[in-house]
Amino acid sequence: MELLKKSAESLKALKAKKPLVHHITNYVTVNDCANIVLAVGASPVMADDINEVGDMVSIASSLVLNMGTLNSRTIESIIAAGQKANELNIPVVFDPVGIGATPLRNETAERILNSVRLSVIRGNMSEIKILSGLNVEIKGVDSAADDSNGETIAIETAKRFNTVISITGKTDIISDGSRICLINNGHEMLSQVTGTGCMTTSLVGCYCGAVDDKFTAAVSGVMTMGIAGELAQKMLTSADGIGSFRVRLFDSIYNLTPETLLREGRISD
Amino acid sequence: MELLKKSAESLKALKAKKPLVHHITNYVTVNDCANIVLAVGASPVMADDINEVGDMVSIASSLVLNMGTLNSRTIESIIAAGQKANELNIPVVFDPVGIGATPLRNETAERILNSVRLSVIRGNMSEIKILSGLNVEIKGVDSAADDSNGETIAIETAKRFNTVISITGKTDIISDGSRICLINNGHEMLSQVTGTGCMTTSLVGCYCGAVDDKFTAAVSGVMTMGIAGELAQKMLTSADGIGSFRVRLFDSIYNLTPETLLREGRISD
Amino acid sequence: MELLKKSAESLKALKAKKPLVHHITNYVTVNDCANIVLAVGASPVMADDINEVGDMVSIASSLVLNMGTLNSRTIESIIAAGQKANELNIPVVFDPVGIGATPLRNETAERILNSVRLSVIRGNMSEIKILSGLNVEIKGVDSAADDSNGETIAIETAKRFNTVISITGKTDIISDGSRICLINNGHEMLSQVTGTGCMTTSLVGCYCGAVDDKFTAAVSGVMTMGIAGELAQKMLTSADGIGSFRVRLFDSIYNLTPETLLREGRISD
Repeated sequence: MELLKKSAESLKALKAKKPLVHHITNYVTVNDCANIVLAVGASPVMADDINEVGDMVSIASSLVLNMGTLNSRTIESIIAAGQKANELNIPVVFDPVGIGATPLRNETAERILNSVRLSVIRGNMSEIKILSGLNVEIKGVDSAADDSNGETIAIETAKRFNTVISITGKTDIISDGSRICLINNGHEMLSQVTGTGCMTTSLVGCYCGAVDDKFTAAVSGVMTMGIAGELAQKMLTSADGIGSFRVRLFDSIYNLTPETLLREGRISD
Repeated sequence: MELLKKSAESLKALKAKKPLVHHITNYVTVNDCANIVLAVGASPVMADDINEVGDMVSIASSLVLNMGTLNSRTIESIIAAGQKANELNIPVVFDPVGIGATPLRNETAERILNSVRLSVIRGNMSEIKILSGLNVEIKGVDSAADDSNGETIAIETAKRFNTVISITGKTDIISDGSRICLINNGHEMLSQVTGTGCMTTSLVGCYCGAVDDKFTAAVSGVMTMGIAGELAQKMLTSADGIGSFRVRLFDSIYNLTPETLLREGRISD
Repeated sequence: MELLKKSAESLKALKAKKPLVHHITNYVTVNDCANIVLAVGASPVMADDINEVGDMVSIASSLVLNMGTLNSRTIESIIAAGQKANELNIPVVFDPVGIGATPLRNETAERILNSVRLSVIRGNMSEIKILSGLNVEIKGVDSAADDSNGETIAIETAKRFNTVISITGKTDIISDGSRICLINNGHEMLSQVTGTGCMTTSLVGCYCGAVDDKFTAAVSGVMTMGIAGELAQKMLTSADGIGSFRVRLFDSIYNLTPETLLREGRISD
């Protein structure tokens, strides 16, 4: 219950601060990410040229790195922006979209992990499992995660990479290596719309730009999307489908209040 | 009637297989293409870096090449992905968006035709006419299409390029050079929303990833969009416009069943 | 009242001509821009490769340059397309998105102002203020705008750059350096959806492709978006949010007639 209250307070803080969230992200879901950031009460900016990402991240409250449509030009921008953010102590959230699908994605994720300090990493179970097995030079804990159990993977990967791991799925699992939280919000229609993963990462980025505790920020971002998915689905009639669901998802995020989180949140804490 | 039954079976096969459809496509309509692929029951992936397109297409069931926003970087990726798909016998669907508008588009289409074996090409009548006149070195049939008649253009261009030609318009015309099918589904509002052409090509890509007969796949993809357009329009009230139409289009594809195709399909076969 | 009538006639002219509007724009809001252009009755084309922008703009009725997601490749395309448009007397509309946020944006805006003749520039007050202070070599008037007053900024910046300045905000201010028009349409929800600024610029581009007087074109484009925002908001119920608002925005533009402009327009003229 403590964590749920903290999440509600985080949403309040987010709406008060309206943090600017810099994204280097893919061109498939970028519009949805910008709109979800606005809907929750923050402010998005997307910029990916190597000649401006350092300047842009300097005025931002957080940075979201999403490797959905990587290319050689933007990989360099991702690294440069991430390092600048680290210099300035601006939190960085990473979404390793499609890791495991190609060597380029694995290598890029490794490079990011080796050169940028990440506040939160969000992916599905398969992505986080692959991430946990990467050849990353880590100071300190070096064990690959045991893949027998989602909670163990979250905890061990968080420890290994010294970050908060958010595994989204039917039950979401968030851990910072010591704390763990299971979230039971969400609806399966979320998996039938492109970009709901990316949007969740953007929401985590919004919370990271507003509150200090990144574990709470990750829980809040993931829970926000889960609750919005449930509320959106409840608004549908039988003739509706993912078109209407998507519209209702944005409506729900827009209308979400700290009270909604307290009332609808179903977390293990 | 035989073909309509085959289309209904194709949709069933698509939903059972959930093929992964790799796209190298434009940034204008890419989100809609991803969502339409999910809505019909397949799985989209968009990747265009030369260093990963070969790996990505290797795990896909089909490849969609769309030249809506060409650039020098992605042209090379298109060729590389197409050739890799050919090596692995993965069907390739091509959408020559805007061919005829600029020499770059004509040259790129020629290069694609000369270096990649295509399963289906989809365009509007003007695009297919221009395509049929390109300077392409074809083994075998070499006649330019007679442009006096849409059906002849479809048949001759299909023969010349040894592919299935899908000409979409008020009446859609699909031919593999021997068979021909006219489709009388659709609604004019489809032409007032950006990306309905691209989405139709993506739907053809989904069916190509699920069934062997590419003529049936092309008919199914084009008819799916036409029927969805009709159903979407019927759901509108007088205050609605293309915003609502677009939402209903996704709803209709999402709710489409093999029975819908059997009931609503209006094809010449 | 004269100007309102001219705007209504401009919409009529636009719908009759269906101008082709070439965009070099950002990947965040490009889909919305294409759909808004179609909704108002014009025709969009997006192309940004240096090897085709000259050919593409040559067949267009107007060119929209938007620097939302600049990169080194597209900056060159922007300059080339702008200069080709100037050669052919095709109007160019410029949206200096995010100017002031980074040196790259300021330098690029300077370069555009120094090398391309612009028919209309649209931005918010903060963007136009920064623009007015750029180090641009201008023949003729050379004074920086006095920033004490929005109307003065619009007039002086219009004179300095010999263009039409459109400052959008709660009250929109349009000036060509001699004439000035204040528009009191719009709704605050427009600021809670990404891309409404970009879409407004695209609408101005549509009108510029259809009518000779660029001041009237700018007024018409900005007022079209403002009225659509009001009509969209009126269609919402309490459970709705920005998802539904966005859908209704496109519906409203689609259903907009010259009579709507005459009835709903609230301008100072």
